[in-house]
Amino acid sequence: MNKIEIKEKFRQFEDHWSPRIIGELNGQQVKLAKLKDNFVWHSHANEDELFMVMKGTLIMEFRDRKEVVKEGEMIIVPKGVEHNPYTQNGEEVWVMLFEPNGTKHTGTVQYERTNNNQEWI
Amino acid sequence: MNKIEIKEKFRQFEDHWSPRIIGELNGQQVKLAKLKDNFVWHSHANEDELFMVMKGTLIMEFRDRKEVVKEGEMIIVPKGVEHNPYTQNGEEVWVMLFEPNGTKHTGTVQYERTNNNQEWI
Repeated sequence: MNKIEIKEKFRQFEDHWSPRIIGELNGQQVKLAKLKDNFVWHSHANEDELFMVMKGTLIMEFRDRKEVVKEGEMIIVPKGVEHNPYTQNGEEVWVMLFEPNGTKHTGTVQYERTNNNQEWI
Repeated sequence: MNKIEIKEKFRQFEDHWSPRIIGELNGQQVKLAKLKDNFVWHSHANEDELFMVMKGTLIMEFRDRKEVVKEGEMIIVPKGVEHNPYTQNGEEVWVMLFEPNGTKHTGTVQYERTNNNQEWI
């Protein structure tokens, strides 16, 4: 029940595409991640996923279109929908994620960057 | 799967202590509320509740202490914990809430301001 300073939490890690957990409620987790360049096309079989952009501009690509999500905006990706998040021009983008406990960052895809980090900060 | 512009959503309502719904995922809802002055002591029997401050400074009072939650900070109030959110000096504070579908804004308390608004914006 202590307040959580989100910007201070972002300062605690540097690597990209590896979410850290900052809170948990109702079986869901709040995570922070730094994103840069490309990741991997993936989907989550059973989990909807919210991305809220805290800094920079996230491109969320779907198979048929893209959404450009800027600072102060968010997007919800429903379960089962393939998505390919990336950033442009080498920009580092900060996002907050809401998703069920245990959600894997590459979903059903096993990928060289898959680490399923469960680190709390 | 369209992005949601949070600041634009805040411009769609004016009243205080009456959350609007802007998103739903995994049985949870994302809501926005404008808070000003006092509300009511209450708790939620079964729902944890996240408050993220988007503008201004929220005071979250518990029975034994207070937390001062500023813009860019958040706090999670566990189920069953009595809390009394308020703002100081007539400030209007904007918050984003994350809580299970159907959570009542005054929890187990029936209060003159209870309206259990389920309006989407």
